[in-house]
Amino acid sequence: MRTIKLTLAYDGTAFHGWQRQPGRRTVQGELEGALARVLDRDEMTVAGAGRTDAGVHARGQVASFQCQSRLPARAFPPLLSRQLPADARVLHAEDAAEGFHARHSARARRYAYRLLGAPDVLRERYAWAPPRLPSLPSLKAATAPLVGTQDFSAFQAVGSSPADPVCRVLRAQWRPCEAGVVFDVVADHFLYHMMRNLVGTVLVAAEAGDPAGHMRAVLDSRDRSRGGITAPPQGLSLERVYYDGEDPA
Amino acid sequence: MRTIKLTLAYDGTAFHGWQRQPGRRTVQGELEGALARVLDRDEMTVAGAGRTDAGVHARGQVASFQCQSRLPARAFPPLLSRQLPADARVLHAEDAAEGFHARHSARARRYAYRLLGAPDVLRERYAWAPPRLPSLPSLKAATAPLVGTQDFSAFQAVGSSPADPVCRVLRAQWRPCEAGVVFDVVADHFLYHMMRNLVGTVLVAAEAGDPAGHMRAVLDSRDRSRGGITAPPQGLSLERVYYDGEDPA
Repeated sequence: MRTIKLTLAYDGTAFHGWQRQPGRRTVQGELEGALARVLDRDEMTVAGAGRTDAGVHARGQVASFQCQSRLPARAFPPLLSRQLPADARVLHAEDAAEGFHARHSARARRYAYRLLGAPDVLRERYAWAPPRLPSLPSLKAATAPLVGTQDFSAFQAVGSSPADPVCRVLRAQWRPCEAGVVFDVVADHFLYHMMRNLVGTVLVAAEAGDPAGHMRAVLDSRDRSRGGITAPPQGLSLERVYYDGEDPA
Repeated sequence: MRTIKLTLAYDGTAFHGWQRQPGRRTVQGELEGALARVLDRDEMTVAGAGRTDAGVHARGQVASFQCQSRLPARAFPPLLSRQLPADARVLHAEDAAEGFHARHSARARRYAYRLLGAPDVLRERYAWAPPRLPSLPSLKAATAPLVGTQDFSAFQAVGSSPADPVCRVLRAQWRPCEAGVVFDVVADHFLYHMMRNLVGTVLVAAEAGDPAGHMRAVLDSRDRSRGGITAPPQGLSLERVYYDGEDPA
């Protein structure tokens, strides 16, 4: 039995998220269908590294599956991309070590959230224009307390299935981009809605007198009701997943 | 009778271009419908500065119309945007001088064409990834001969309705952008498919031994068959229209 690792990108706008759901258009569902057609099987199951929500994009999602096909790994991207709708694409495929699992083997993930300084109909499919964009220095100040190993319960969606709330955040950086700023976060794992709740809270903290103090107080409270809104999905993208031997720093 | 000048932006992906056509979803058609509903008229007619093709975007299209309404100009953007589909938006409205006409009064237009260095499913709605992206210096060299008042017949779509082929190009510049380069051109007017034919030809010229010489030869030939392909519409956007008193330089 072979294990194959796929890297894929998708525009999340028209998907009901990654995870397969009966009767809904999901990335996992489309990928499994494409794979079954390519391998001529009744059905195939893939594991995904990140369960992106409806409307969330990916530039570096990773999926794994097992098969007995003798196709060379490099044949999978063109064969699968031809079977997939235009808003999803397989970028890379390789044979992985036995026991490799896209989610369980992942050591870290990088998500990016893109904010605009002003509304722009030609950018809002992949970014969010908040009512007011704080300055870059105040955004940076607000996110400094996030780096390290901490309990992120304050940023986990209320009612979501419980995950280990202690995350190790390796990086939380802001950088300028065309027409706005990008928030890059690398962590060992992310709680449900964590990136979007972080963004909503940072926007409030950055306008406070003491941005870092505000953020630290929300973090320490472990209380979701202390945070800001859940920023909308279209600004978010799963950029990369890191495995053993890859340096996420 | 008042004349109103509107500035609008749209994602051209799902429109059959600017110009009204029976039974097709066009920007002009949607805007005229929205305006008729806002003003409670049976129908309204607007003039547009640039007749963008199917799939071409706009960040600064200008439209004008006449009416007898007493609504303040600033009321039009929110009222119209509410009546328009989500992929079109009115950014600004103002009273214009009597006789103002979005197309006839325009002194210059600026179009931008965005090229990517590599395919990217999260950028290809608003940009094109050519098989190979030439270097920025060679792209600049190839477009230097375009500036000035010249006959651009070599870049006019074959069979298009004849326009004055002599255009005054005020600017033809390349600048780096996220993941690629942008080609900005300002001219008094553009021929049908001119921007897209320029891009297709520049891509060939930039790889030639003498990029400027290649481009000059195509330009001087006035022969469309000497040029490159018509680059696809999704990379193109009408960025701005200039009127009397506005400096396009």
